[in-house]
Amino acid sequence: MLRDLDELMRNRAIDTLIVPMHEAMHSSFRWLSRGAKVTRGYAVKRVDRNPLLVTYPMEREEAAATGLEVRLASEFDHDRIFQSATNVSAAYAEFFDILLRELGAGDAIAFFGNVPVQLYHGIIESLEARGRRVHRSNGEDIIQLARKRKEPWEIDAIRSVGARTQQVVGGVRAMLRDCERGKSMTIGDLKSFVSSEIARLGMIEDHETILSQGRDAGVPHSRGNAAEEVRRSVPIVLDIFPADKTSGYFFDMTRTFCIGDVPAELQRMHAQVLEAFTLARDAMRAGVEAKHYQDMVCAYFESHGYATLRSDPKTLTGYVHGLGHGVGLDIHEKPSFHLTDANRDLVEVNDILTIEPGLYFPDRELGVRIEDTFVVREGGVESLCEGNYGLKV
Amino acid sequence: MLRDLDELMRNRAIDTLIVPMHEAMHSSFRWLSRGAKVTRGYAVKRVDRNPLLVTYPMEREEAAATGLEVRLASEFDHDRIFQSATNVSAAYAEFFDILLRELGAGDAIAFFGNVPVQLYHGIIESLEARGRRVHRSNGEDIIQLARKRKEPWEIDAIRSVGARTQQVVGGVRAMLRDCERGKSMTIGDLKSFVSSEIARLGMIEDHETILSQGRDAGVPHSRGNAAEEVRRSVPIVLDIFPADKTSGYFFDMTRTFCIGDVPAELQRMHAQVLEAFTLARDAMRAGVEAKHYQDMVCAYFESHGYATLRSDPKTLTGYVHGLGHGVGLDIHEKPSFHLTDANRDLVEVNDILTIEPGLYFPDRELGVRIEDTFVVREGGVESLCEGNYGLKV
Repeated sequence: MLRDLDELMRNRAIDTLIVPMHEAMHSSFRWLSRGAKVTRGYAVKRVDRNPLLVTYPMEREEAAATGLEVRLASEFDHDRIFQSATNVSAAYAEFFDILLRELGAGDAIAFFGNVPVQLYHGIIESLEARGRRVHRSNGEDIIQLARKRKEPWEIDAIRSVGARTQQVVGGVRAMLRDCERGKSMTIGDLKSFVSSEIARLGMIEDHETILSQGRDAGVPHSRGNAAEEVRRSVPIVLDIFPADKTSGYFFDMTRTFCIGDVPAELQRMHAQVLEAFTLARDAMRAGVEAKHYQDMVCAYFESHGYATLRSDPKTLTGYVHGLGHGVGLDIHEKPSFHLTDANRDLVEVNDILTIEPGLYFPDRELGVRIEDTFVVREGGVESLCEGNYGLKV
Repeated sequence: MLRDLDELMRNRAIDTLIVPMHEAMHSSFRWLSRGAKVTRGYAVKRVDRNPLLVTYPMEREEAAATGLEVRLASEFDHDRIFQSATNVSAAYAEFFDILLRELGAGDAIAFFGNVPVQLYHGIIESLEARGRRVHRSNGEDIIQLARKRKEPWEIDAIRSVGARTQQVVGGVRAMLRDCERGKSMTIGDLKSFVSSEIARLGMIEDHETILSQGRDAGVPHSRGNAAEEVRRSVPIVLDIFPADKTSGYFFDMTRTFCIGDVPAELQRMHAQVLEAFTLARDAMRAGVEAKHYQDMVCAYFESHGYATLRSDPKTLTGYVHGLGHGVGLDIHEKPSFHLTDANRDLVEVNDILTIEPGLYFPDRELGVRIEDTFVVREGGVESLCEGNYGLKV
């Protein structure tokens, strides 16, 4: 929430922060700029004030359409500075220095967001040479922290992506039922269907959907082999994470299916993964450290004889990934469930997060993952899509 | 071309460069990693060697599918370091320091690419505190410089996006012909068609397509108003720039249409823009500075009484943008046509670039732009799509 950002800025004595955008939209700019349809610009946030957009003349009207105050780069001597500049970083530093002065910004400034590192490292050095004090975050991203607790409209946006994602998964399920009845199809046929449905329903496929079977299903981020025929009696993992085309909010959901006869070992693992999933889901409460639940699920799997990242950080079989992650304008955001000393992220009311335990044995052609996306409420978590976690299609 | 990068590295005494990826794929990582389907990783390029990918265990097989050598982050103490780290930037610096040492990298290193600035600024400072020498580029992006001259397969990839883009434009043209015959439709109907066609043809719409009419057409980057009915006797600007979903290569193309009676003023401006376009296209030769052609087109428009960015850098009417830009894994890349002292970019053989002059008068409901994407050959430029620049649909 934007007001969380004000508090984070105050606590770190940051007066003004700048989130630049160069060509590629990223989540911090999108959030602060309300999705401004510009190809270049700067979101400037002063403590306790609304963000301001600095843009280029051709995009003045798209920037203004956000409802935010808009200033043009040319108002801050942009054209004069860049006309004769030979050191581009120094030129940007001069531009930002003028901009900050004209806005009456205080001494302490900060940069955040995904930007060209070779450019911004030099800009920060040049600004410091001009006497500006640039905040050192040691890697802490206060915009991501502020984005953690969602506003009601953000929860609605994610719920809407969830409903459409559920619809795509329903379509895959129907295709697999045809396959079970004898129709032959490839993993690529399923992937094409997923891609076109995602587009048809107003969403984008940011990274390729994971649709993998057998051995590939045993490697969590294997995207799957499009050329393979869909096979019977092996796990088929569908991990789908589209974003709404307009709002940019993601949803994340995984189901593991099996057509034909289900091997006993797969059946047992699926039941165990579902039990771990249910355990974490029912236990999760606001105010508790997220990594507590990773610990809980590691203990569960270890008690069933599986290696986990807790018992062996280098394991490539068993429970080889984290329990979940926050979801928003990035597919992976706060809170983190990592079992590290530095991770003190709390589960908080209005967080959106996934729970997604899994078990993986590539050499035995086994991989199982079950995942839903939840909103954290006062008494626990609420799923943002339908259930139906079964192996059978 | 990759071998251009080796020369750029040698000239700047850079032994090893690192292009990180955190969550969001960007063009420098995509290029160097051959589009690795990973969500986190590092492309490491030593001078005169092939890039190496450093990734996380879950994504080991997708990284290996690129054909590049793959190493796991865990081989460089990643887990131990991050387990107890309290300063994330310092932890990454330790990780990179170990990685560079184990690879036998020389003293001078560099970071490039779009990365979280708050993290990487701290990483660079920590690496320097450890005695590493980190290259200062002053904003120069040598990976973008290396990407400028395309390989034959890249030209083919862009030509393929061009053919599909042309097909989408043909569909819009057909819809506008229906509209001319009396069928009513909105700008939003056209935009929906464009979006679904882009998806159907295996491409992505990275930023919203520009489809604007009348006053909006007079503001170059106005995306247009979806709610408006398509109108007669006003300019309709379609600026479409999809990327191939798999390769990531863009195409860029603009046409200006008018249905119904064409006002004389619009007809005249369109003819002038087409003349400017043809002038630049026919004159363009390898070995000449790109900004020479911006100068040429400014002179042409000024001789016809229009303001240009050369005669008035702050003008919002007349010829208000650059003549073109390189196209590749970014929609805007090298060469630059900007009229600044620092811009010494040459037009070179195998560059892919656009030519896109335009004239804009929002208050008179006039905006005209004509754009194609070209490959530079020995004797001039070759269009990568069909012509048909006419106003009539």
